[in-house]
Amino acid sequence: MNNPAATAVLIVIGNEILSGRTIDTNTQFIATELANLGINLREVRIIKDDKENIINTINHFRQIVDLIFTTGGIGTTHDDITSEAVAEAFGRKYIKNEQAAQLLVDYYRENINEVRMKMAYMPENVSLICDKVNQVPGTGFIIENVFVMAGSPKIMKGMFEGIKPLLPKGEAIVSKSEDIMIAESRIAQEIAKIQDMYPEVEVGSYPFELDGKHGTSVAARSANKAKLMECYQAIANLAYKYNNSAK
Amino acid sequence: MNNPAATAVLIVIGNEILSGRTIDTNTQFIATELANLGINLREVRIIKDDKENIINTINHFRQIVDLIFTTGGIGTTHDDITSEAVAEAFGRKYIKNEQAAQLLVDYYRENINEVRMKMAYMPENVSLICDKVNQVPGTGFIIENVFVMAGSPKIMKGMFEGIKPLLPKGEAIVSKSEDIMIAESRIAQEIAKIQDMYPEVEVGSYPFELDGKHGTSVAARSANKAKLMECYQAIANLAYKYNNSAK
Repeated sequence: MNNPAATAVLIVIGNEILSGRTIDTNTQFIATELANLGINLREVRIIKDDKENIINTINHFRQIVDLIFTTGGIGTTHDDITSEAVAEAFGRKYIKNEQAAQLLVDYYRENINEVRMKMAYMPENVSLICDKVNQVPGTGFIIENVFVMAGSPKIMKGMFEGIKPLLPKGEAIVSKSEDIMIAESRIAQEIAKIQDMYPEVEVGSYPFELDGKHGTSVAARSANKAKLMECYQAIANLAYKYNNSAK
Repeated sequence: MNNPAATAVLIVIGNEILSGRTIDTNTQFIATELANLGINLREVRIIKDDKENIINTINHFRQIVDLIFTTGGIGTTHDDITSEAVAEAFGRKYIKNEQAAQLLVDYYRENINEVRMKMAYMPENVSLICDKVNQVPGTGFIIENVFVMAGSPKIMKGMFEGIKPLLPKGEAIVSKSEDIMIAESRIAQEIAKIQDMYPEVEVGSYPFELDGKHGTSVAARSANKAKLMECYQAIANLAYKYNNSAK
């Protein structure tokens, strides 16, 4: 057996998601990246820019998962309170990080000002997360098992590239699927049997419509490649049976 | 003062969201609808198709918010366990709902089978949620303050239309915004001042890029229309100041 996969949660911080103004795309990006790394994303919480709420959510998870990722609330405006809340959650001082301050000065040069310098304020004793892609200063940070990243998808992705080498690697969770041109309810029992035969594999089915006909995408997902391939073969057989009889 | 807005949470149930396979669009739809109804969406949780987890999450929120919405896990396959989990959360029997069974028979006619009939199984003593738009049988349900809906965005939307008349109406939360062609950090202090002047209004700012230039969308959001308009006027003045000086 492999080591059990590391567990993670994602905390998406931002009123704009809960108001419907902005669609959250960070979840799908991070979920996919974590699956590729073999990390088990257990839950996502989308919460408001509210200090108590941020503190409680982080402290709830700190002991029960291996990794906590947050997005949002580390910019320059009044509602960017994530860094301060994280400092409070850890009972650490909220101070100007001199390394981050220097990066901001180097980047903004004569346009540095007090407001931009807000991004250098963090809990004491953190490691910076730099945006390797967009070459903007790293004002995300790592504090114990919590990775605090920007909410802007572009900058978050750049930051994620920065932390990727630091994350534990498990067996990548691989997914293989077949589209079967039949309504889900007509093959639900056969899918359930396949699931029963391969408990190490997560079998999912996703109905779709194509040219007015019902189809079902049946997917197998597992970090155990041998069992995954066996399970996938059973799904492929099912697809062959129904897709051929439909022709 | 108006009555305080009803509070709500959304629980998105589905491994396919947490694996990155599927992007969750139900959150944005429901968030927008709730804002229009004047209902305060406090949090969204995306959780796995795991019975204990569903039970714990529902029971955690039952006493602390007015309304709980769930999406996902009420179909015909082995991983559709939401209805059973909800029954257990409420300590009720999980039984065949005769009204739902009849709707399924009327809809599928000679194609009804045991698997499709699974969708009629629900906790005892619930009200059905019918999909008014797609004219498929209502196999969502309402149990006390919990609204259990399908995960498929199309059917979920149809179901939401069905429950809309039942939801409490508050003052619609209205949002007005202005795009200002200046970097967020350069107006962050002015935005913070506006927020301080109008505590009844939620002021948010969202950076964007247009033709390589930095801009900031500044939005005011409130159910208090008079204060909203005053606050918006202050934002419009700020936009006038910077957008004109830029020309």
